[in-house]
Amino acid sequence: MFEPRRIRHCRLCGSPVRYAVPPDDNRERAICTACGEIHYENPINVVGTVPFWGDQVLLCRRNIEPRRGLWTLPAGFLELGESTSEGALRETDEEAGARVELGALFTVLNVVAAGQVHFFYLARLQDTRFAPGPETIEARLFREHELPWDELAFRTVRETLQRYFADRARGAFGMHAADIR
Amino acid sequence: MFEPRRIRHCRLCGSPVRYAVPPDDNRERAICTACGEIHYENPINVVGTVPFWGDQVLLCRRNIEPRRGLWTLPAGFLELGESTSEGALRETDEEAGARVELGALFTVLNVVAAGQVHFFYLARLQDTRFAPGPETIEARLFREHELPWDELAFRTVRETLQRYFADRARGAFGMHAADIR
Repeated sequence: MFEPRRIRHCRLCGSPVRYAVPPDDNRERAICTACGEIHYENPINVVGTVPFWGDQVLLCRRNIEPRRGLWTLPAGFLELGESTSEGALRETDEEAGARVELGALFTVLNVVAAGQVHFFYLARLQDTRFAPGPETIEARLFREHELPWDELAFRTVRETLQRYFADRARGAFGMHAADIR
Repeated sequence: MFEPRRIRHCRLCGSPVRYAVPPDDNRERAICTACGEIHYENPINVVGTVPFWGDQVLLCRRNIEPRRGLWTLPAGFLELGESTSEGALRETDEEAGARVELGALFTVLNVVAAGQVHFFYLARLQDTRFAPGPETIEARLFREHELPWDELAFRTVRETLQRYFADRARGAFGMHAADIR
């Protein structure tokens, strides 16, 4: 959940801010009481992949909070200096140590309450040797009937996996955009 | 263009920050020298629409910097508390005063150098009465051969319009993801 009114001091000069609607705007922003700097807060992006190998997909068991011990697709925050596809590849390497050939953008899921947009790309695994990083307890392949549906870390992971296996069953992969409330 | 190392003071306590790689991280972040707060900076999202009426699309001539006087599709920054489709509708109302029926997500364009991801949705105009807001000098409809290609405000607008008219010519609209360097 994003925290409103979390900014208390100006990032430029360190003076206190006040929340008010700037001229020519229609939302409250944190405005510096000394230098006038306006601080905008916006949703951030999470990028990841659906790494697949035949009829199996790769999941990672989280070694970090939140949701430590639960299973996720490899994903993390998009960084400055990279595109969504580059970030998805980086997270797949960092969290699973997996080599993939990146495919199409598969899901774009708004998680409004968290102030996040999640992107998942299809990703064909090149082999099944995984080398999970410190954020992951274990990385392993699951067939659809083996999936730990009750131990998934995030709703966007569930939604993406459901759509993946549905599209796989019908033999055609689309791009799915949805809002998660 | 995003500005690296722009944070100089902690948003929580106002003390100076230093840039360093936090434990369990691999990138420099602004870390407060007093309270230890870590400040992350991430790409932000721009959301907009391709409002169409028959064989015409609606463009807005910008009344604000950057690119004042040039033409754009209605678009702006995604805000906390809204989804990408809700933000696209809001911007279409604010900038063009246009009533649309929102369609599918059409383009997802990474502008890495600017630290931005742009989303454009197809949007069927309900009528041709426009009421542009203060950010817009003029809102008007253009057929493909009338488009002001040399007076477009942003590369993502050009890329989206090119794909729109290409898809329209072949009679099928896809979802296009691309990186703009």
